[in-house]
Amino acid sequence: MLQRRICILTDGYLDLFSAKTAVGLLRYCPDEVVAVLDQAHAGEKLETLVGVGAGVPIVNSVASALCYRPDHLVLGAVFPGGRLPEAWRTFIVEALAAGMDVVSGLHTRLGDDCELARQAAEGGRRLWDVRAGEAATTVGTGKARQTRAKRILTVGTDCNLGKRLTAIELAGELARRGLRVAFVPTGQTGVMIKGSGVVIDAVVADFVSGTAEEAVLEHGDEDYVVVEGQGALLHPSYSAVALGLLHGVLPDALILCHAPTRRHMRNTDIAMPSLDENVRLHEALLRPIHPARVVGIALNGYGMGERELHEVLSQARVRTGLTVADPVRTGVADLADAVIAG
Amino acid sequence: MLQRRICILTDGYLDLFSAKTAVGLLRYCPDEVVAVLDQAHAGEKLETLVGVGAGVPIVNSVASALCYRPDHLVLGAVFPGGRLPEAWRTFIVEALAAGMDVVSGLHTRLGDDCELARQAAEGGRRLWDVRAGEAATTVGTGKARQTRAKRILTVGTDCNLGKRLTAIELAGELARRGLRVAFVPTGQTGVMIKGSGVVIDAVVADFVSGTAEEAVLEHGDEDYVVVEGQGALLHPSYSAVALGLLHGVLPDALILCHAPTRRHMRNTDIAMPSLDENVRLHEALLRPIHPARVVGIALNGYGMGERELHEVLSQARVRTGLTVADPVRTGVADLADAVIAG
Repeated sequence: MLQRRICILTDGYLDLFSAKTAVGLLRYCPDEVVAVLDQAHAGEKLETLVGVGAGVPIVNSVASALCYRPDHLVLGAVFPGGRLPEAWRTFIVEALAAGMDVVSGLHTRLGDDCELARQAAEGGRRLWDVRAGEAATTVGTGKARQTRAKRILTVGTDCNLGKRLTAIELAGELARRGLRVAFVPTGQTGVMIKGSGVVIDAVVADFVSGTAEEAVLEHGDEDYVVVEGQGALLHPSYSAVALGLLHGVLPDALILCHAPTRRHMRNTDIAMPSLDENVRLHEALLRPIHPARVVGIALNGYGMGERELHEVLSQARVRTGLTVADPVRTGVADLADAVIAG
Repeated sequence: MLQRRICILTDGYLDLFSAKTAVGLLRYCPDEVVAVLDQAHAGEKLETLVGVGAGVPIVNSVASALCYRPDHLVLGAVFPGGRLPEAWRTFIVEALAAGMDVVSGLHTRLGDDCELARQAAEGGRRLWDVRAGEAATTVGTGKARQTRAKRILTVGTDCNLGKRLTAIELAGELARRGLRVAFVPTGQTGVMIKGSGVVIDAVVADFVSGTAEEAVLEHGDEDYVVVEGQGALLHPSYSAVALGLLHGVLPDALILCHAPTRRHMRNTDIAMPSLDENVRLHEALLRPIHPARVVGIALNGYGMGERELHEVLSQARVRTGLTVADPVRTGVADLADAVIAG
């Protein structure tokens, strides 16, 4: 793969919830990110703000970013519904004018904006709408069950709590143990990191499970396929994607991701259902088709002290009887053991 | 609404499973259907073949259909994946040439076929792709809970067993009792019958629940909103749509539709899960967001003798403790009582 020089745009949204894409790229493509553009935080330290990105400068304009010779502007935050904030258009226009390609994972396609499309074409620049892959037209049939590979899916009690990170870390750990592993991204950040894949929430609803199934079958001969989960079964905004993915992948084992400090599901007034309820529900939705178990819990202990984290991990172990780890703070070795055993 | 003169195309697919759209139109728009086009069954009786459509002739060509002066050709069957069989293109070309509008509920849009689009435009005819509504971009938020109207959703243990019919019959029964009722169609046939609405399985996955939510809120001031369900929670092809709809509508009461003779879910080798398992699962997926109960079972007793049907109804009553009826054979009065009580 070509080494990119990426400037990430997060202006107005530089926090752990909104700037998922930024944080994912900073974590997994650290050598490729040369700057972050965010007026409110220019000059501050990324590490303090979002826990990753040590040494990458935050700048306040496209002009300042140019000192670091970026060749890509990546829109690094997500918004409910995935629409482009009007204010960001200006940055995109300036980036194209400065000779950068622009990468977006929003539902609103940059290529559908006639002025941006014309400007890009005239300047010989690329607008890569990660969500605008080939239109999927495959209905799921349950045939992912036939893969030689053991299929692992990370699922969540909510959105935005570590399903992608857990899948990438787990795939890495299995590979380090000498196993042949494919990581299958299913969201915009995962696809940007890997450089290919289908953003599953942008697929027509009838074809969600079929698209997931195809992605898994493509890697069916590996030892393991680790698939990035999406949404949450009990989140009223994103449950359709979560269930379509579950029934497309038909995993042999699941890792349930959870943020213990969250009292309500994101952007809702709905109290967070328990780990047990989530485990039961995932297993119930697989039972008639391909029975499988949740074999481990990935807790997101961001912001917790050491002692609190270990208390929370140990409570979850007692309560669920499962392997529990924080992939960032305690690593995924135990979860990999559980996947291999389970 | 304008009275249409409809010729329904079912060629090669005139059975109760494939010809859902045909059967729905014959049942609910009987005065508008003037002919059915199906070469294998020309001259036979529709009533014998699919149980509805007495008096509507089956013809073997567009030319023969013209005797009945149709002004619409409606594609009356569905195929897995919703692609247009190549053989049907000829009929469409002939119908356009004969001055008919063409209505399709397939995922493959007739309007995307350049030759058909040009022929229609030149002849001043309309290609109505029912699945090609305005692109939905609304994320579900759970706010359907705020409607004054009591929200009723028909759900199923499988595809294609009476969710639309049950919803239409139930809405009709509630209206006959003097209540203000809106029927919300969500599939191609329902939308064709009502003449408006969004085909939910054609919406981008992220927006399924939001689109359903909007449709319900539009009728929020009625006494009842009865929504046509889609797919099935445990069917690997269509579960995404089923769950997105469930979480968009957030029903106050559900009617579970079931075909007791079906041993496997459609187009799968998966044994049909029990009524109990389905009831539990629907209720579990609503509990944290908006707890609601399955208040009745709509059995599809097509093809059963009287005695067998009544045995099956009575067994289901004993097993589930719920109100059970066959909407076609025994009517929906009991189910309406259960909805009003529940």
